[in-house]
Amino acid sequence: MSQVEGRNPVYETLKRGGVRRLLVASGSEGERRVKEIIDLARRKGIGVEFVDRRRLDSMSETGRHQGVIALAEALGYASLRGILDKVKGDVCIVVLDGVQDPQNLGSILRTADAAGVDAVVVPKKESVGLTSTVLRVSMGGAAGVPVARESLYPAVKILKEGGARIVGVDTSGSADYWKEDLTGSVALVLGGEGQGISPTLLSKCDSVVRIPMHGSVPSLNVGVAAALVLYERLRQISAAR
Amino acid sequence: MSQVEGRNPVYETLKRGGVRRLLVASGSEGERRVKEIIDLARRKGIGVEFVDRRRLDSMSETGRHQGVIALAEALGYASLRGILDKVKGDVCIVVLDGVQDPQNLGSILRTADAAGVDAVVVPKKESVGLTSTVLRVSMGGAAGVPVARESLYPAVKILKEGGARIVGVDTSGSADYWKEDLTGSVALVLGGEGQGISPTLLSKCDSVVRIPMHGSVPSLNVGVAAALVLYERLRQISAAR
Repeated sequence: MSQVEGRNPVYETLKRGGVRRLLVASGSEGERRVKEIIDLARRKGIGVEFVDRRRLDSMSETGRHQGVIALAEALGYASLRGILDKVKGDVCIVVLDGVQDPQNLGSILRTADAAGVDAVVVPKKESVGLTSTVLRVSMGGAAGVPVARESLYPAVKILKEGGARIVGVDTSGSADYWKEDLTGSVALVLGGEGQGISPTLLSKCDSVVRIPMHGSVPSLNVGVAAALVLYERLRQISAAR
Repeated sequence: MSQVEGRNPVYETLKRGGVRRLLVASGSEGERRVKEIIDLARRKGIGVEFVDRRRLDSMSETGRHQGVIALAEALGYASLRGILDKVKGDVCIVVLDGVQDPQNLGSILRTADAAGVDAVVVPKKESVGLTSTVLRVSMGGAAGVPVARESLYPAVKILKEGGARIVGVDTSGSADYWKEDLTGSVALVLGGEGQGISPTLLSKCDSVVRIPMHGSVPSLNVGVAAALVLYERLRQISAAR
């Protein structure tokens, strides 16, 4: 079982399905958003239990339950091959090389859901998985975008065989990201906090783009970098229509 | 005095100036990045003090000092009028209507520095200020981008008088943000977490753009939304050259 905390994440997970039980802090059922959550759970036939707020406090893994915790079927990891087999048309995959901060993975899943990404690939080692913090920060995005946990070199090989161009996003890149054609099937590779993409993985990229930096900070947050390239892709697709 | 914690924030603040004293955890001076920080401080004639790591632990306001804390002159708030008087050419200002999460303000300052923003305006009430967490998350960006803390309606009036177009970024927007001309002098207005831009402020915007959403999450993180529009502006400027 996985535990989903906070009003928006719980609401989005209820919409998606897989919630087994909903716990609500007694006394908060009069608030509009909590009422919406309870109504949705009841419409879906999910048991709603009113408990003392202190019980939620002690259960909470994120410290920010906002009066609601949903107990859901654990979000499993998907298989990259399985995802590619299902997608019709162009794929857009995000490959994360060593993102260890749950805030960053959560942020990327939220944006990836909004940008219509088909899957996020994280390595088995040295990476954060689908923790409660990731689920909360993703605001329901973790329920919308499958996460594959696979060794990255074989994953990149599978992606290339599937016809995706592998585009690294790294400070070492030669061209500004908006000069790269990001339409069609692409896999965007981003490195973890501070480290960037590992040299071996970088050498497997078909091209490497950079985000121009005009100030003194050395790099952008990886969640922000991912968002910029994903939305530039959407802009290019929209412009090409 | 303000306290800057963590290796990158301390390094960037040292480069900028204003650090009075540097505290380093004894035993960490052999690490490459810490050595760079100590060397930079010494070149600048700033006193370096080696202290027990537990002293840093107890002083730390963010819980993530990474062995270095700089005591710096407090980052003051700037005056919007003063900033506009100094900028030659087009201005780019970010106006935040009620961002309360220090992670988000820190993230926006980091990106704003990278995107060459001239100032960030936050209201006096119901907004986070320049706390230690904001400074840490900004990775030095808070030292690069002046923050004005002013009432927002007068601020928007000053910006309009200065020739800036006021562009709101909100889910209620009518056009995708990449369809809006973002070159020239602009002020980008974004709303806080969950609330969006207040109706009165929204009515003062010259145009309101939206970020297209293709999944189930209702909105993007405000730091991500700000980054998308700021970098779309840079792309348009680059394309117009």
